[in-house]
Amino acid sequence: MTKKRNLAILGATGSIGTQTLAVVDEHPDDWNVTLLTANNNTNLLIKQAKKYSPNTVIIANEQNYTVVKDALKKTSIQVQAGQQAIVDAIAQETIDIVVAAMVGYSGLASTLKAIEHGKSVALANKETLVVAGDLITQKLKEVPEAKILPVDSEHSAIFQCLSGEKLSSIDKIWLTASGGPFLGKTKDFLSTVTPKQALKHPNWDMGAKITIDSATLMNKGFEAIEAKWLFDLKPQQIDVIVHAQSIIHSLVQFNDGSIKAQCGLPDMKLPIQYALYYPRRKKNDWERFDFADYATLNFETPDKETFTNLSLAYEAMGKEGNMPCILNAANEVVVQAFLDERIGFLEMSELIAKAMQKLTYKAHPTYQDYIETDMETREYVCSLIR
Amino acid sequence: MTKKRNLAILGATGSIGTQTLAVVDEHPDDWNVTLLTANNNTNLLIKQAKKYSPNTVIIANEQNYTVVKDALKKTSIQVQAGQQAIVDAIAQETIDIVVAAMVGYSGLASTLKAIEHGKSVALANKETLVVAGDLITQKLKEVPEAKILPVDSEHSAIFQCLSGEKLSSIDKIWLTASGGPFLGKTKDFLSTVTPKQALKHPNWDMGAKITIDSATLMNKGFEAIEAKWLFDLKPQQIDVIVHAQSIIHSLVQFNDGSIKAQCGLPDMKLPIQYALYYPRRKKNDWERFDFADYATLNFETPDKETFTNLSLAYEAMGKEGNMPCILNAANEVVVQAFLDERIGFLEMSELIAKAMQKLTYKAHPTYQDYIETDMETREYVCSLIR
Repeated sequence: MTKKRNLAILGATGSIGTQTLAVVDEHPDDWNVTLLTANNNTNLLIKQAKKYSPNTVIIANEQNYTVVKDALKKTSIQVQAGQQAIVDAIAQETIDIVVAAMVGYSGLASTLKAIEHGKSVALANKETLVVAGDLITQKLKEVPEAKILPVDSEHSAIFQCLSGEKLSSIDKIWLTASGGPFLGKTKDFLSTVTPKQALKHPNWDMGAKITIDSATLMNKGFEAIEAKWLFDLKPQQIDVIVHAQSIIHSLVQFNDGSIKAQCGLPDMKLPIQYALYYPRRKKNDWERFDFADYATLNFETPDKETFTNLSLAYEAMGKEGNMPCILNAANEVVVQAFLDERIGFLEMSELIAKAMQKLTYKAHPTYQDYIETDMETREYVCSLIR
Repeated sequence: MTKKRNLAILGATGSIGTQTLAVVDEHPDDWNVTLLTANNNTNLLIKQAKKYSPNTVIIANEQNYTVVKDALKKTSIQVQAGQQAIVDAIAQETIDIVVAAMVGYSGLASTLKAIEHGKSVALANKETLVVAGDLITQKLKEVPEAKILPVDSEHSAIFQCLSGEKLSSIDKIWLTASGGPFLGKTKDFLSTVTPKQALKHPNWDMGAKITIDSATLMNKGFEAIEAKWLFDLKPQQIDVIVHAQSIIHSLVQFNDGSIKAQCGLPDMKLPIQYALYYPRRKKNDWERFDFADYATLNFETPDKETFTNLSLAYEAMGKEGNMPCILNAANEVVVQAFLDERIGFLEMSELIAKAMQKLTYKAHPTYQDYIETDMETREYVCSLIR
């Protein structure tokens, strides 16, 4: 019998967090859950804590501390609160692998900390690499025992296709995009859509932020930037192809013209499990893909004119420096504003474009620069909305 | 600069042989062509000999010896004739890699010899594994420095998908089939087709024998048997899916449900080059796949009722022993008879089925048993045709 590995889940109550625990439930002999964190969802965090008995649970929103603390007072589980507590807890030696599944920029500090301490990071929080891919990459070079294992289905696909291959033999990659709920729609149509419509993703069951990012194609733009850092690619090596059925999760073309694709039913448990067990595969009996259900697979070029976020993301990727950080911070603000029905669907891109023009560009930002850029961008975009 | 590797091409004037030389032409600094063999095509063999200056050329049909000998008398190239000369030449120490691209059963003896002598064999001659996969597999275990590198596009696809993966984590594979020129046709239609119609393959430019085997789906049945031996699979782990565009060359499903596919334009140079350079990839500037040309990829279940050869091949694979040898020998005879317009398209399957019922089954055949089974089957099927 192999030793149980110690697992920390940052963002345990979200879509990736709960699916990670579903994977743990299938193979309970393989895992000790040692740390669970959540932002606001106290009820679910308490439930999870009681079920998995981690050493520590942390609620990021400090206002919720007492609720969680009281609920768990009869247990031996340590309860903490606040973002800094999460970063500090990551340094624990008892953690073998960290699932980084927080939403947005808030994941950066803890991911950096995990790498510093030589952990394996199953990274679902793509904004971390979007905002500060250079810092993460640099840190990975300094701490060779640390590694990032991608959890996004597209990057897991690329990562799986690269098994046994050299990064240097990559010609290009295609990230597949479902196209989201508004595939084929016009700007006129988009000007009228509501958050409720945008939250209905055709293939993937995900959190609200990433579902809106999928509807605007910003998610795909972020994934392009994430892929650039994960696989050491140039922007012109990263292509996006719309594939409505979400069966081919992404493709790599090698320098001999050979292409590998990773495919399967759209189920995030698979890339999560692949990251948790890498480099092994772990047998499971989940539902299998059947060609009888998919007699046709379709592909089309993304409509970058209508979904301008994708163009903005490529522009930010090309400019490098703090530009992707501006892109991300502006996007976080506008997505929340759209969900709150304070701005329309098309305004999201307009405001991000304004931020990218307005904020001060820095070619070689430090960690502190990123923090400032993030804050300044949020303030600027908020000022445009209010 | 890396050392040139010594290349032997058995079946140099056929489709795979000429395309292998096309790959050599693209990277002339990497290869010494040391041995070329052909069956009957003296003109092309002589032309190739003058261009590549191998140590030895061998014409299998001894009646053509003088023509080749005379044409090359002013060169230092050794000219030999006969099947046994080919087998003997394989033992040369100066050969690093053997491309086995003869047609049919005739490739068996030289492939076995190459493995005995620890060579790398780029195997295009699938009948070798169909007929005597157990002998080949046994020999590979005895001579660990020898290896088989598949050249068939489907097996190269599986082989590429398995890079960095364990054979034991394979759940199943799908071999893709273009369906050949008669995809979707009825038995009534097939009863009338001519060799000329059957020789028009929609996607692949190949020799006559394999093109007819593609039209009858026997080729796919052979590939299933070949895959069983190459990748240590059970018949129920090998599936066939018709994919008319021939872009996805085959797929592997792993035991976690993840699927990998290898794709690209249908061009045999790619799998040939992959086998020659394995485990490296070699950069080239051949035409690349473009999703703009393939907005839709289609898949359908093969029609085993109409194309009974596929069922016969699975039956032979399941029975093991000398049954695949009977299948192959009968098929070689009936394909030639069909090409000679002595029997109709549907009679091919009928005669193979009769041979499988009539010939003596041997569960654990020796090499000598295979030779006898092959000969007896040919005699029997010929007697049915005359």
